[in-house]
Amino acid sequence: MTAVPAVVLLSGGLDSATCLAIARAEGFACHALSFAYGQRHEIELRAAEQVARELGAAQHRVMHIDLAAFGGSALTDRHLAVPESPSSGIPITYVPARNTVFLSFALAWSEVLGAHDIFIGVNAVDYSGYPDCRPEFVQAFETMANLATREGVEGAERLRVRTPLIHLSKADIIRRGLVLGVDYSHTVSCYQADQDGQACGKCDSCRLRSAGFAVAGVPDPTRYR
Amino acid sequence: MTAVPAVVLLSGGLDSATCLAIARAEGFACHALSFAYGQRHEIELRAAEQVARELGAAQHRVMHIDLAAFGGSALTDRHLAVPESPSSGIPITYVPARNTVFLSFALAWSEVLGAHDIFIGVNAVDYSGYPDCRPEFVQAFETMANLATREGVEGAERLRVRTPLIHLSKADIIRRGLVLGVDYSHTVSCYQADQDGQACGKCDSCRLRSAGFAVAGVPDPTRYR
Repeated sequence: MTAVPAVVLLSGGLDSATCLAIARAEGFACHALSFAYGQRHEIELRAAEQVARELGAAQHRVMHIDLAAFGGSALTDRHLAVPESPSSGIPITYVPARNTVFLSFALAWSEVLGAHDIFIGVNAVDYSGYPDCRPEFVQAFETMANLATREGVEGAERLRVRTPLIHLSKADIIRRGLVLGVDYSHTVSCYQADQDGQACGKCDSCRLRSAGFAVAGVPDPTRYR
Repeated sequence: MTAVPAVVLLSGGLDSATCLAIARAEGFACHALSFAYGQRHEIELRAAEQVARELGAAQHRVMHIDLAAFGGSALTDRHLAVPESPSSGIPITYVPARNTVFLSFALAWSEVLGAHDIFIGVNAVDYSGYPDCRPEFVQAFETMANLATREGVEGAERLRVRTPLIHLSKADIIRRGLVLGVDYSHTVSCYQADQDGQACGKCDSCRLRSAGFAVAGVPDPTRYR
């Protein structure tokens, strides 16, 4: 029997790696999708490639899109500094409509593959306050997606946007991933990781990640510079 | 006073050119957005550039995305023939999730520009039966978009996806555009236009277009090969 296909968004960070492991554990043939979108931490794509291989993805693709051309985010604009202390509101590292763009490509691919499941590792507990990580956004995207495609007109089966991490704490995500064999030393979460994938330990993403290992009571395997 | 910005999706075809003219007539500073997505009729992008200039767009950008990598459409896969006679159901020229992807980029840009209006020239009357041209799709996208962005969390003003052509016949679109000064001889609608922008006269898009001129009682300025 051929495994049922699913599209899994894979950044190369802790959350998406865990998400891929969960999709695999559910038995899906995982088609992992990453984006070179002009992010300053493009080194995460090397992590994504390695993680996809280690966690048994059926294939891994990297789409090249130029979100940096629009600007408006510290993740794509080298002239804006990545904050190294907590801030209130939606942080400058938010990339306008990033998850909408990523999910749209996942939708296109899923339609061609005949997949009815798209996995995205968004999290609404230990997260940075990005609007496109909220459950209500994901639900609205799913509703739209079911009207957008051939399947939405002709098909019987609904497309589902699966968010297995959305209500988990960072510590719970880590515990779950360790059970499923994720090697977190190969994931890169840092917004300003260097060319060797070494983390700054100061940005929002690093802080959330290291606190997660501390709460989980697990040694932090992150390579800090 | 600075004009209010809007993002206008511009393919270079008849509908999107008319849509741009309408947005301009409403007084918007129009930021026109086109896509090189692996379409076989990439010549339409030259038309888009000319039309953007003629119709007074504030700027025109072309995003390069590789939808052809996913395949699944006669518009991006040279191994699939463009049908030259009417068919039932959703035609093979449908590109999976294309308008979802296009609108997602428009959303990203609108957020950076501070625009609250995205114009798309979809039409649900004289159209090819694509699922992502239907009013219910556009409404669902708008709902999702208002949850996706910074503005959706912090802002007071809703983002609107504007579809001024959606209930017009092709003839009505043409009449409207002529009043607004659109030079349709500079637009390219043909799915298999050649390198000079000359149309086949046989594909679905050509048939809808030429019937529109006939019904409108206007000479068809299309250059056929």
